[in-house]
Amino acid sequence: MRNLKLTLGYDGTDFNGWQTQPGYRTVQETLEKVIETIIGQKVYANASGRTDAGVHAVGQVVNFYGDTRLTPEVLVRAINAHLPKDVAVRECVEVPQAFDANKDAIRKLYRYVIHDTPMRSPFLHRYATPSRHKLDAAVMASASRALVGRHDFHSFETEWPNRLTSIRTITHLSVNRVGEYIWIDVEADGFLYNMVRSIAGTLINVGRGFWPEEKVAEILKAEDRKQAGPTALPQGLFLMRVTYENA
Amino acid sequence: MRNLKLTLGYDGTDFNGWQTQPGYRTVQETLEKVIETIIGQKVYANASGRTDAGVHAVGQVVNFYGDTRLTPEVLVRAINAHLPKDVAVRECVEVPQAFDANKDAIRKLYRYVIHDTPMRSPFLHRYATPSRHKLDAAVMASASRALVGRHDFHSFETEWPNRLTSIRTITHLSVNRVGEYIWIDVEADGFLYNMVRSIAGTLINVGRGFWPEEKVAEILKAEDRKQAGPTALPQGLFLMRVTYENA
Repeated sequence: MRNLKLTLGYDGTDFNGWQTQPGYRTVQETLEKVIETIIGQKVYANASGRTDAGVHAVGQVVNFYGDTRLTPEVLVRAINAHLPKDVAVRECVEVPQAFDANKDAIRKLYRYVIHDTPMRSPFLHRYATPSRHKLDAAVMASASRALVGRHDFHSFETEWPNRLTSIRTITHLSVNRVGEYIWIDVEADGFLYNMVRSIAGTLINVGRGFWPEEKVAEILKAEDRKQAGPTALPQGLFLMRVTYENA
Repeated sequence: MRNLKLTLGYDGTDFNGWQTQPGYRTVQETLEKVIETIIGQKVYANASGRTDAGVHAVGQVVNFYGDTRLTPEVLVRAINAHLPKDVAVRECVEVPQAFDANKDAIRKLYRYVIHDTPMRSPFLHRYATPSRHKLDAAVMASASRALVGRHDFHSFETEWPNRLTSIRTITHLSVNRVGEYIWIDVEADGFLYNMVRSIAGTLINVGRGFWPEEKVAEILKAEDRKQAGPTALPQGLFLMRVTYENA
């Protein structure tokens, strides 16, 4: 059995998230069915992590085991020919047997996109969260510095069963204005459930002047979800990149 | 009655074109219903021209007559608050009683977008036509020069009842590569049915090397639709701008 690693993008709008759920259209099931059609064998697509309904991916990483003799290049073309238009595989490489796209991920980078102009775009509503308030990216960037490093992020998670700890390390956090959009980029060694979206909801409150920038450090210290801002909408969130030890 | 001019954009994907048709979701009916809700009066939205199912607009222009005392700025906000996410009004201005968005248009600019890479994007499939062949934008630009000016464009139209003449004047035609995309911009004093899409289909055949660039001038001269390339898909087409005498 070969172990094959795929890098893929998807528009999360019409999917009920990554993970297979009976009765729903999910990316995992869509991808597995296409691979099974091509290689004639049941497969399990093991992703770097789940994404929720409405969340997009530019660089989700998946591995699966299969007996196919097709080259990785031919596999990419065959898979893309069968996939619906809102998912596309960018790359396929054969990896060592032990590679696990989920357990071996050392860092993930998410981008949260906010459109902060009263003139909404009919084209980009699927890919950004609207804000009626103009946001100050510089103040958001300054406030966000308190979150960089190793911390207990309990204030920025939605409770989820069986997670062992809420300590994570944010290795990079930037807030930039890109035209009428604000990009919040967060890279960490792991993410708690809704972590980026609650960080975004908190920074939006700072950027619109509703909260002082010092409040972000206080929220982090409080280790209390009720102190932070709301969980921002899923459609602004993109899984950009997953990093592995030797890649 | 005031005469109000709106500039609006829409994502044509989920509309069955501009013009009202019983049983279909159209931009005209969607917009008229919203305006009627706000001003409490039946209105007719008179557009610069129809767009087909799947065709987008960045700068469609419409005028309507109404008795409202709301200012244009308040009207824009009220209309946008009621419109679905795939349509947005960018501007509203009061215009002289005689202004007619359809009859007074002196030029329209369309953009046709082609994505010519084997790596398809899961995000942009609604907004570009895929091409499996890499296109030579410089050759397409050179070939397109034969079309600029006043000509009989019968080779580049789908038959449509009651049109008086197929003579039109193209005032600007450019073909540019923008990253993985080719933009074909065509501005003219008027367009025949499917004119931009058949020009695009023809230039694609040239850009992929299937036809020599001189063939475009021959097709124009032939005044025969069968000589030209296929009508390219609607999802690559955007109505960018409509120009009026005093604006």
